[in-house]
Amino acid sequence: MKDVAARAGVGLKTVSRVVGGEPGVTPDTERRVREAIDALGFRRNDSARVLRKGRTASVGLVLEDLADPFYGPLNRAVEEVARAHGALLIIGSSAENPDRERELALALCARRVDGLIVIPAGDDHRYLEPEIRAGVATVFVDRPAGRIEADVVLSDSFGGARDGVAHLIAGGHRRIGFIGDHAHIHTATERLRGYRAAMADAGLPVAGSWVSLGSTEPERVRAAARSLLTGPDPVTAVFAGNNRVTVTVVRVLAERTPPVALVGFDDFELADLLRPGVTVVAQDPATLGRVAADRLFHRLAGAALPPARTELPTRLIPRGSGEIAPPAV
Amino acid sequence: MKDVAARAGVGLKTVSRVVGGEPGVTPDTERRVREAIDALGFRRNDSARVLRKGRTASVGLVLEDLADPFYGPLNRAVEEVARAHGALLIIGSSAENPDRERELALALCARRVDGLIVIPAGDDHRYLEPEIRAGVATVFVDRPAGRIEADVVLSDSFGGARDGVAHLIAGGHRRIGFIGDHAHIHTATERLRGYRAAMADAGLPVAGSWVSLGSTEPERVRAAARSLLTGPDPVTAVFAGNNRVTVTVVRVLAERTPPVALVGFDDFELADLLRPGVTVVAQDPATLGRVAADRLFHRLAGAALPPARTELPTRLIPRGSGEIAPPAV
Repeated sequence: MKDVAARAGVGLKTVSRVVGGEPGVTPDTERRVREAIDALGFRRNDSARVLRKGRTASVGLVLEDLADPFYGPLNRAVEEVARAHGALLIIGSSAENPDRERELALALCARRVDGLIVIPAGDDHRYLEPEIRAGVATVFVDRPAGRIEADVVLSDSFGGARDGVAHLIAGGHRRIGFIGDHAHIHTATERLRGYRAAMADAGLPVAGSWVSLGSTEPERVRAAARSLLTGPDPVTAVFAGNNRVTVTVVRVLAERTPPVALVGFDDFELADLLRPGVTVVAQDPATLGRVAADRLFHRLAGAALPPARTELPTRLIPRGSGEIAPPAV
Repeated sequence: MKDVAARAGVGLKTVSRVVGGEPGVTPDTERRVREAIDALGFRRNDSARVLRKGRTASVGLVLEDLADPFYGPLNRAVEEVARAHGALLIIGSSAENPDRERELALALCARRVDGLIVIPAGDDHRYLEPEIRAGVATVFVDRPAGRIEADVVLSDSFGGARDGVAHLIAGGHRRIGFIGDHAHIHTATERLRGYRAAMADAGLPVAGSWVSLGSTEPERVRAAARSLLTGPDPVTAVFAGNNRVTVTVVRVLAERTPPVALVGFDDFELADLLRPGVTVVAQDPATLGRVAADRLFHRLAGAALPPARTELPTRLIPRGSGEIAPPAV
């Protein structure tokens, strides 16, 4: 505030009046103070602000898909951390739409949340820069922010996919398909990169027809899986890029003889009770949510930290589907 | 507004000033207007208000459990209706805690939502009366409001459970257990009532040890299921009161010989791929959400409707687990 006052050529009390929206400041002075604030990237001390006003802190969570069970434990972990800090959690869902994400994040800021946790749908988050400068603590989770520096907590999508595909290769598979989410989604491309790395490490070629990215809607995934399994160069194993893809591929493979091997990214409920059990590369969504929320509240408590990237390891869980051998030729 | 003006003995313009927070009204006049408003239950025309201010409408959704997949399609349906109306949807989760529900609902109102959809955790919603009087359209979904008259959209829990249990009885079962959610939850007691009705209709006694209500945490459900299956009067079939209970009971029953029959309330992902497939009484959560949201936007558009109760039918889906015969004696 001293820097703002010096730059605007006014007293501390005047800056305080402008920031607090109090009367007694001429329009010209107010303009100068606001320009100085913008120029200096003035940061509210959120923690002090919350305590001073004696009101409940609130944090916003911008979700990606309300109906994807992967996010359930992540969302609940964020909620539990918020509750432990006595803060309200207000949520909005972008439904995978970048415009919607932006609209929601800004709407939550306009409603005076103290901090934001974002599961990004878009890849350009410069729209949040003024909010971050104004003191809204912001942490990204599951996928990184685009074109701004910000905290992010995510899983090792590249390494996890590479391990899962290497597991299929170790089991004797040479023709392995990859079905993933849209190419503009960070986790989708990272997992595809892991698939390609495992194939390259083993000196295996990847036919163009073996890779399919797109919507996780069942019809699209079903068509993609059937296409991988037929044609001149059919695969003997499938790597599914996330839980929404996996549950549809499971249905397609249930009909096939000889059986086709499957490893899926993300664990899911009842995966172990299916026959065969579904081998997965498991993330820990609850820990993703907890670490992201802890980071947010650390910032809200006034910690001045540079933006950091936290990457959590994944875990391969063999259950049967990923251990099916390729048919003898 | 005419009624308010007449009752307060002032002009329309004065009422408008008081409601709009404009200056030029004496404290005594303002008090008289406010008393008239309270007395008459003055209702803002929300639709007009939204249009007048030229801002985006926003509606709040108070969820019950972020990690219960049953609510995924319900939440997403509400979101889709809100989006179709160009409205922002802001969500909070009560985590099954009545105090939290109240705190969240009021926080959303304080942040000027135009309407609220509530999946109630508590059974006393009189705290919402001032908000509803002030014009916040409010619709309850999945469970009714407590101690206030309000719109509610829910499934026929009683009839669905009665049908599911009757199905087990028709298959030859006489000793049937019921494992449900906490007794303070409306759906839990309605489903228990359905179970008791089906047993009574068939002239079958219900042993006290066959009914277990409580948390849906896996440990509690596992213990309850094991207790039903052992002891002096073991059951040959189980009716599970919701999807959280069912997925745990499936695990317990997977270990049993001879096999035990199971019907669960709520369908769930992959229920058909388990062996045996799980017979369920399916609700339609997407329709619950859509009907509730449609009702809300109907009210926001200015419809002056008395509170209504909409009950959606359930559907029995036989898949194998509910058709297992009792062991021959």
